[in-house]
Amino acid sequence: MKRLNEIEWEKFEALSLEEKRPYLERVEGDGMPYHTLFAQQFDRPVLERLCALANRIRFINKSKEGALYLKGVLAHKRAMLYFSQPSSRTFLSHLAACQILGITTGSVRDAATSSEFKGESREDSVRTFSSYFDMIIMRSPEQGLAERMAWELSNSSRSIPIINAGSGKDQHPTQALLDIYTLMRSFEEKGGLDGRTVVFCGDLMRGRTVRSLSYLLTDFRNVRQVFVAPQELQVPADVVMILARRGIDFEVTDNLREAVKSADAVYMTRIQDEWDSAKGASARIDTSRFKFGAEELKLLKPDGCLLHPLPRRDEIAVCCDRDPRAMYWRQMRNGMWIRAALIAATFGFEKDIMSCGY
Amino acid sequence: MKRLNEIEWEKFEALSLEEKRPYLERVEGDGMPYHTLFAQQFDRPVLERLCALANRIRFINKSKEGALYLKGVLAHKRAMLYFSQPSSRTFLSHLAACQILGITTGSVRDAATSSEFKGESREDSVRTFSSYFDMIIMRSPEQGLAERMAWELSNSSRSIPIINAGSGKDQHPTQALLDIYTLMRSFEEKGGLDGRTVVFCGDLMRGRTVRSLSYLLTDFRNVRQVFVAPQELQVPADVVMILARRGIDFEVTDNLREAVKSADAVYMTRIQDEWDSAKGASARIDTSRFKFGAEELKLLKPDGCLLHPLPRRDEIAVCCDRDPRAMYWRQMRNGMWIRAALIAATFGFEKDIMSCGY
Amino acid sequence: MKRLNEIEWEKFEALSLEEKRPYLERVEGDGMPYHTLFAQQFDRPVLERLCALANRIRFINKSKEGALYLKGVLAHKRAMLYFSQPSSRTFLSHLAACQILGITTGSVRDAATSSEFKGESREDSVRTFSSYFDMIIMRSPEQGLAERMAWELSNSSRSIPIINAGSGKDQHPTQALLDIYTLMRSFEEKGGLDGRTVVFCGDLMRGRTVRSLSYLLTDFRNVRQVFVAPQELQVPADVVMILARRGIDFEVTDNLREAVKSADAVYMTRIQDEWDSAKGASARIDTSRFKFGAEELKLLKPDGCLLHPLPRRDEIAVCCDRDPRAMYWRQMRNGMWIRAALIAATFGFEKDIMSCGY
Repeated sequence: MKRLNEIEWEKFEALSLEEKRPYLERVEGDGMPYHTLFAQQFDRPVLERLCALANRIRFINKSKEGALYLKGVLAHKRAMLYFSQPSSRTFLSHLAACQILGITTGSVRDAATSSEFKGESREDSVRTFSSYFDMIIMRSPEQGLAERMAWELSNSSRSIPIINAGSGKDQHPTQALLDIYTLMRSFEEKGGLDGRTVVFCGDLMRGRTVRSLSYLLTDFRNVRQVFVAPQELQVPADVVMILARRGIDFEVTDNLREAVKSADAVYMTRIQDEWDSAKGASARIDTSRFKFGAEELKLLKPDGCLLHPLPRRDEIAVCCDRDPRAMYWRQMRNGMWIRAALIAATFGFEKDIMSCGY
Repeated sequence: MKRLNEIEWEKFEALSLEEKRPYLERVEGDGMPYHTLFAQQFDRPVLERLCALANRIRFINKSKEGALYLKGVLAHKRAMLYFSQPSSRTFLSHLAACQILGITTGSVRDAATSSEFKGESREDSVRTFSSYFDMIIMRSPEQGLAERMAWELSNSSRSIPIINAGSGKDQHPTQALLDIYTLMRSFEEKGGLDGRTVVFCGDLMRGRTVRSLSYLLTDFRNVRQVFVAPQELQVPADVVMILARRGIDFEVTDNLREAVKSADAVYMTRIQDEWDSAKGASARIDTSRFKFGAEELKLLKPDGCLLHPLPRRDEIAVCCDRDPRAMYWRQMRNGMWIRAALIAATFGFEKDIMSCGY
Repeated sequence: MKRLNEIEWEKFEALSLEEKRPYLERVEGDGMPYHTLFAQQFDRPVLERLCALANRIRFINKSKEGALYLKGVLAHKRAMLYFSQPSSRTFLSHLAACQILGITTGSVRDAATSSEFKGESREDSVRTFSSYFDMIIMRSPEQGLAERMAWELSNSSRSIPIINAGSGKDQHPTQALLDIYTLMRSFEEKGGLDGRTVVFCGDLMRGRTVRSLSYLLTDFRNVRQVFVAPQELQVPADVVMILARRGIDFEVTDNLREAVKSADAVYMTRIQDEWDSAKGASARIDTSRFKFGAEELKLLKPDGCLLHPLPRRDEIAVCCDRDPRAMYWRQMRNGMWIRAALIAATFGFEKDIMSCGY
């Protein structure tokens, strides 16, 4: 554990993710994050603790008494949800996670209702929020803003934790957490995630969820990764390099059906045409063979599972929705539980919750 | 009581409102609704129970202790307010109703801040909300969406209740509840609503509140209904047919002053020009004789009452606002109480509240 | 103490601020405001009580137990934040103040999501909100609207308090409270505010914060006021006249550095170009000598302090942010505490909080 207020910004910024990690932990030094900025902060032991905590919260919340206990845990805290990029899923699941723990919230979801038009810098805006709240959960189109603000606040007289709820094309760590949590839950009673085959399909070039999940899977034993995409949207070289360097078994292909046959989990993604450099560029790519429908479902193992970060367009046919292997609705709800776990851990309430009587 | 997950969508959709009703009740089979989709779900016994519950909640809420008791009733629940059509009154009164019962809320009030732009279907959006919340209160320009989603959720692994807060030109059941509650309260200590004359005036063609209230009044004994409107905006044929078939005494006229003389209650409505097929069509209709002012007030019985669903333009002159017979402000506040009653009943807390010590 | 429902609107409107004041107090007659409409309502004894209460709330809130006690104080109340003008700071700090006291809130921040498009008057809108909530906190571009609505509500069957969170170019009383609170805190352990020199700099013509703070300072003994601005943006004649009439020592100048040397407190403000009558008019004024940077910081007394209502552009250089004399971040947080104090006092909980065991 190192302290973010003992390093200059330029030096911190220049560090690798690996090197940055210890600066983001809680002072308690228990491995839990204080600021949550990127998926690479989470190693397997922390992931397992967070997943256990999420399971516990999910269980406690089933009874009214349990739910009321949870609502007391952080009833003295207030969180700011600062979403300057549109989002409903990520916003609402963070909101719900806060509510489960009793945190009251404020939000800015639209730059137009804020003071930015008066010429205020984003740094001043975030600092403003830090005046009134005990945590900032932020989504921004600006890459690196969450990191910058984490450093700023840790160096101010009012240090409060930041959770990055998506920054630019780059990082979306809580999405990575919910993905890995869903995989871990799916195989929880079937011998675990080690040794499984995970197939990624769709826009692997621009989907930041793929990048993060692929990375987290390298911390598990013998998880094979298969990347299925049209050539123009295949997984980027840096992801492949990490896998190669870590000695992970992986495959790059354009044959979804073949891949599904060997899959324990299939992770479908949407074509992210909002990032197209030329308008309509994605529309010219033939994506017809990268959709999951009734035929693919037939090929999937009986105890396999099908994931999607949502929102979807037509990557997964609606006819799959009620198949017991379709995990994407549960995956969404898992987002709420794992975020509640993360927030509780950030404020140091992991042990209280794990050992409470409910 | 029948189960919504035991009937196919196409079959359910084809049923009459009467036939649909038993599918929407709570499994407890106590007559209370689980999904609230249309005004025709409520018969007189249920209306009377809801009004009694609303009265009770209103009374309990007067003291701090009572208010805190109520805030505990549903403190373990969270509700989603999904309003993809502008609204302040309906939104805020549902919000207030939730808050009175301790329900924490999330909201989407503007399609632009949601994921819809990413090409997600409305069905997926609503299903998303169901992941994070325990109830969905929704207003939509799309006729039938609430019904469709009620069926969808009842057939998913995560069934939660839906309250229709206005769908298309068609249904707005909680508005009907607050209207009938206001009438029942107004005549509560004056011998009740049976045998009264209710005058509707304004845009009777397109005001869904008129259609619903007219229907609910047929469940009371000898309530005479008078419809006052310019010819182009008179009450539609299907409403008239229901009254005729049920043997209700009613009258269609364009003479407001005559009607007011015989009225126990006058229900004014706004010209709904937002539904004009040709822009400005309503403006060409002479509505000058369909406004309630000082002269009309003189003609109203001393114990009569004047209602309006609000917002108003000039259908009721501001000079009427402080007359004790003007019920429209109280009517608005009644909306909060009856919605709180409906929500409490939906979650099965009618008896708890009716029998609590406050 | 006089009653707002015993005077006609036209007569009330015509009164001077001094004469209006007694009509705005709580019926309890303890000097605390019921409606908070303008800065001139607060005399020194009330200011000192509010500041003491804010200090107390700030202290109690430090422990979890204290925070939970505070959350119970007004847990039976609900407040409406009606902001028809963009704002983040004022909105969020009022929100946070409510949350600290356990008040649940609803909000309308954008006219487009409200019913106003249906042709409803603002008076009816505010009256609507009064139906569902126990307090209205409102910001409006319309000068005098808060005052009008305070009278309206006090003359209705549902009187609830109004807090003016900024109306037109005119009044922003809670900003004045936080400014004076920040000054009082800054000199709390250094012999107090009496006898100090306060320098105002920037757009003194249109900044309503300057007008209000200048007025409140006249209630302290021997506080010298210095106004530093380009000629076009100097302090208006009516402010100067009040100072002259009250025998206050003041100075009007364009030399910031000279002024800083003698200052105990420097209050910087932003050029309010959103009020420009001709677009770009402010841009043609040379404001280069009215900015506070490293040089000015050197000239400031060691125990002086630097304030700014924020948001800022470049009136204060970022390099000043970490100087211990830079009070503007703390000033912002003070806004939350003093607003919590004001709200608690409005509802009559001053004594409870001052004498509680935390």
